[in-house]
Amino acid sequence: MTQPGRYPTPELDDLPVDIRERIEAVAEKSGFIPNVFLVLAHRPDEFRAFFAYHDALMLRDSGLNKAEKEMVVVATSAANDCTYCVIAHGAILRIYAKDPQIADQIATNYRSAPLTDRQRAMLHFAVKLTRTPEELAASDYQALRDQEFSEEDIWDIAAITGLFALSNRMAHVTDMAANSEFYSMGR
Amino acid sequence: MTQPGRYPTPELDDLPVDIRERIEAVAEKSGFIPNVFLVLAHRPDEFRAFFAYHDALMLRDSGLNKAEKEMVVVATSAANDCTYCVIAHGAILRIYAKDPQIADQIATNYRSAPLTDRQRAMLHFAVKLTRTPEELAASDYQALRDQEFSEEDIWDIAAITGLFALSNRMAHVTDMAANSEFYSMGR
Amino acid sequence: MTQPGRYPTPELDDLPVDIRERIEAVAEKSGFIPNVFLVLAHRPDEFRAFFAYHDALMLRDSGLNKAEKEMVVVATSAANDCTYCVIAHGAILRIYAKDPQIADQIATNYRSAPLTDRQRAMLHFAVKLTRTPEELAASDYQALRDQEFSEEDIWDIAAITGLFALSNRMAHVTDMAANSEFYSMGR
Amino acid sequence: MTQPGRYPTPELDDLPVDIRERIEAVAEKSGFIPNVFLVLAHRPDEFRAFFAYHDALMLRDSGLNKAEKEMVVVATSAANDCTYCVIAHGAILRIYAKDPQIADQIATNYRSAPLTDRQRAMLHFAVKLTRTPEELAASDYQALRDQEFSEEDIWDIAAITGLFALSNRMAHVTDMAANSEFYSMGR
Amino acid sequence: MTQPGRYPTPELDDLPVDIRERIEAVAEKSGFIPNVFLVLAHRPDEFRAFFAYHDALMLRDSGLNKAEKEMVVVATSAANDCTYCVIAHGAILRIYAKDPQIADQIATNYRSAPLTDRQRAMLHFAVKLTRTPEELAASDYQALRDQEFSEEDIWDIAAITGLFALSNRMAHVTDMAANSEFYSMGR
Amino acid sequence: MTQPGRYPTPELDDLPVDIRERIEAVAEKSGFIPNVFLVLAHRPDEFRAFFAYHDALMLRDSGLNKAEKEMVVVATSAANDCTYCVIAHGAILRIYAKDPQIADQIATNYRSAPLTDRQRAMLHFAVKLTRTPEELAASDYQALRDQEFSEEDIWDIAAITGLFALSNRMAHVTDMAANSEFYSMGR
Repeated sequence: MTQPGRYPTPELDDLPVDIRERIEAVAEKSGFIPNVFLVLAHRPDEFRAFFAYHDALMLRDSGLNKAEKEMVVVATSAANDCTYCVIAHGAILRIYAKDPQIADQIATNYRSAPLTDRQRAMLHFAVKLTRTPEELAASDYQALRDQEFSEEDIWDIAAITGLFALSNRMAHVTDMAANSEFYSMGR
Repeated sequence: MTQPGRYPTPELDDLPVDIRERIEAVAEKSGFIPNVFLVLAHRPDEFRAFFAYHDALMLRDSGLNKAEKEMVVVATSAANDCTYCVIAHGAILRIYAKDPQIADQIATNYRSAPLTDRQRAMLHFAVKLTRTPEELAASDYQALRDQEFSEEDIWDIAAITGLFALSNRMAHVTDMAANSEFYSMGR
Repeated sequence: MTQPGRYPTPELDDLPVDIRERIEAVAEKSGFIPNVFLVLAHRPDEFRAFFAYHDALMLRDSGLNKAEKEMVVVATSAANDCTYCVIAHGAILRIYAKDPQIADQIATNYRSAPLTDRQRAMLHFAVKLTRTPEELAASDYQALRDQEFSEEDIWDIAAITGLFALSNRMAHVTDMAANSEFYSMGR
Repeated sequence: MTQPGRYPTPELDDLPVDIRERIEAVAEKSGFIPNVFLVLAHRPDEFRAFFAYHDALMLRDSGLNKAEKEMVVVATSAANDCTYCVIAHGAILRIYAKDPQIADQIATNYRSAPLTDRQRAMLHFAVKLTRTPEELAASDYQALRDQEFSEEDIWDIAAITGLFALSNRMAHVTDMAANSEFYSMGR
Repeated sequence: MTQPGRYPTPELDDLPVDIRERIEAVAEKSGFIPNVFLVLAHRPDEFRAFFAYHDALMLRDSGLNKAEKEMVVVATSAANDCTYCVIAHGAILRIYAKDPQIADQIATNYRSAPLTDRQRAMLHFAVKLTRTPEELAASDYQALRDQEFSEEDIWDIAAITGLFALSNRMAHVTDMAANSEFYSMGR
Repeated sequence: MTQPGRYPTPELDDLPVDIRERIEAVAEKSGFIPNVFLVLAHRPDEFRAFFAYHDALMLRDSGLNKAEKEMVVVATSAANDCTYCVIAHGAILRIYAKDPQIADQIATNYRSAPLTDRQRAMLHFAVKLTRTPEELAASDYQALRDQEFSEEDIWDIAAITGLFALSNRMAHVTDMAANSEFYSMGR
């Protein structure tokens, strides 16, 4: 079996109980342990902070639905060529969107994917924030407001983009491998 | 007085007690409240996750000393043109490095700053991870090992870079203003 | 059903017989008509030239096996964010390589995909030729020779890259849609 | 005499008769054999496909006149720093446009060349398709329609751009030398 | 003491009298000799031409006031990561603008600095001229005219940008060090 | 006749005598007045400084011969897409190098032009200094020293590159037209 990543992966039994329980819960729900949990468990405090941030953003009520949040993850991770995040969150997106094609379409080119104008504006902002954050101009914010995104929605887009800016970089440096299950989920 | 940012800033008395106490502690130590605390307090759960992540990385023992960690923050934030992070962490860097010039030198051009070869290798890796993470190659990792950075040190460089990749994006989108105190601290 | 592309698609019966027969042959073999045939049939002479070029390269004996030729197509098309070519040739690559993951891995980031050094050198050259052909230097050619690519192999890599540089641009401008069959083939 | 390119160049007598006749025809008309014919003749099938594609596009009736088609070739080849195509097609452009300066002006900077607005829009689209095809947006297509380019004209611009995307890459990799005659033709 | 730069620095007494007098005048006014004078004095004719150009632009009456001219210098030098020019002209800008923060704000990100719309338009033009001069379009000139910049003002912006394009490159290649005095002036 | 540029061009008789004499001298030598003289004469002090700088660099003895200095001008001006400088200095280069092809070859792609390794190293440094001065590393300087360029030669390369960084920007903003004579000189 492929290693989850290039850093040592702790045994579940050696982990602090809160982290082990979190991992066991996800394993029960998914049927396998996504490698991001095993890789980040190498440092429990950072693990806890990462998933606290993740849950605060991904589970909160928002003007973005669950599929749209995952679209932000997939489009920005694709802009950063992050294999783990594109494959894993592509799978989650397929499930939330109930659409077997949308993840591959967004990962390859969100501009030509069959999205609403509102979704395309959201991804345009997110990808620009991902690659050239300094170039975001007043007109980019206005384009979101024109699509009826609230200021809280803009915060959500920015924070999800930011959290995966962090996550993509950890996945690159740890050489995080996507679990084989993700490749076929939701197709 | 300039607003801390463009999102509503809560009154201290309206904040959850753990957040209010964290802010009061930093205000007592610094003599003022850095705007990042006020801006992020708009969303308490994300505030808690951000500072938990921050503390896990910035306070932990590492092959990078405190000044070197701040060098990573300043160089990568400069690469993202993030005013808040460059000004605020530039001040902290001046204090930790006991050098009134180093922050401006790194913010303008880390390549020509008067650093050790080891520090320059660290910043080269961090800035590449910041702007083109997909282009990091085996030779970039080797360059760090050649300077006696351990694998744990590489994780530290990556995670600090990643956390400020997130932080820079939140500072951009919230229009976070650097407190005037930071401009003169440590000069 | 989604349109194959934004230009008018001819009826099979209205096509010159050689083109109709080619399309019928591929339909029989694949079970469906890949949209590139229908879109390019809008201009029979260009259709004939394109597929003559394609066959000359993709069917010839080479130091690259069939899967490796498709790796070049997928990696360079991904560099150009070309949805049709990534999805369609990703499917073909999965079949030739008998590997359900390799296409997604190469499309997302060929650098971190589980390839041989020789394959990685091939894709590095092809992607550089795709995006910044003017920057190819003597050392890039030498890197191929060091992996025992012959001069004829280098021509193959270049010509496949070049043909899909053309194909990607036609797919973009015609808004060529990937057939739904491609998304699941070979998984 | 400079070699036509770095691959072996066949003797005319050793070539298949259709290729030899094509080359003899161009030599008779031009007074010399442009090196692209000798270089590509190394692989007869690809030679045939290339010139079939070339003729299908460059000889067909179009909303672009002959000089305008060559403008697309020169501007896009200049964007790719392709010496053979800029020098050879620059000569052809001077002749078709009956203008000794226009090729150098377009090769250096099509934006400041003395063109009609329609021609400048055409080259703007072609150069963007050349270098960043994924960034072409609805507004880029609209800019062509505003200049009364038909959908068939847009196909022509795209296909000429695409064919020379291929041609530029073959010229780079074969180290194709521009014949000395081209440098002075039409001045 | 740090060397002014990596080329030999002449003794004042060995310099031509006009150059020595110029340097003594600036030393008397500033209290120290800015390193640019010592570094460029290595070649007296180029020294004379540089400062003649500098004075012709920076001392002439203009629609840009003295602080605004320095804003152009700081923003464009920051775009080129030129430590000497950012630090030295940042100090001058603080003094002219009577604002201890503006130089750091412009050097980090002129887009988010507290400027007038007119000043921001000026810097947008100057920075684009600095990094991608070939991309300046009619709309960029119009944006300046919309802010009531005259054609002479546009020349001033262009020429100051151009002179520091030269100066930045000399500072990079000579490894010109910013005098320590500049770091604290005007704060 | 085309205007020399978009700013008012003074009558020779209205110019200060030193400037008029300089222009008359070049007209006598060349047979026409290169437009750069007429355009820059709009501002006599800047005219004097520019040509003083030009003469100090282009007429001085150097490890670069006259043709090599013009190679730097042509290659860096081509990198900036500056029509006036490429056309005018291309003509001068043809004459100095006694080679009717070299200017077009360098303007299109200096990397593939038939140059010595020493000349190619010179142009590689100059073009990098032109477009991304901040990225010049110790290895780039070493590459020049390996080709036996002295430190004074490096200053010459840098200063010529810098002066034309200025000149290119003035040519862009003044819309400076290349005289028709330049197109055919030295062919």
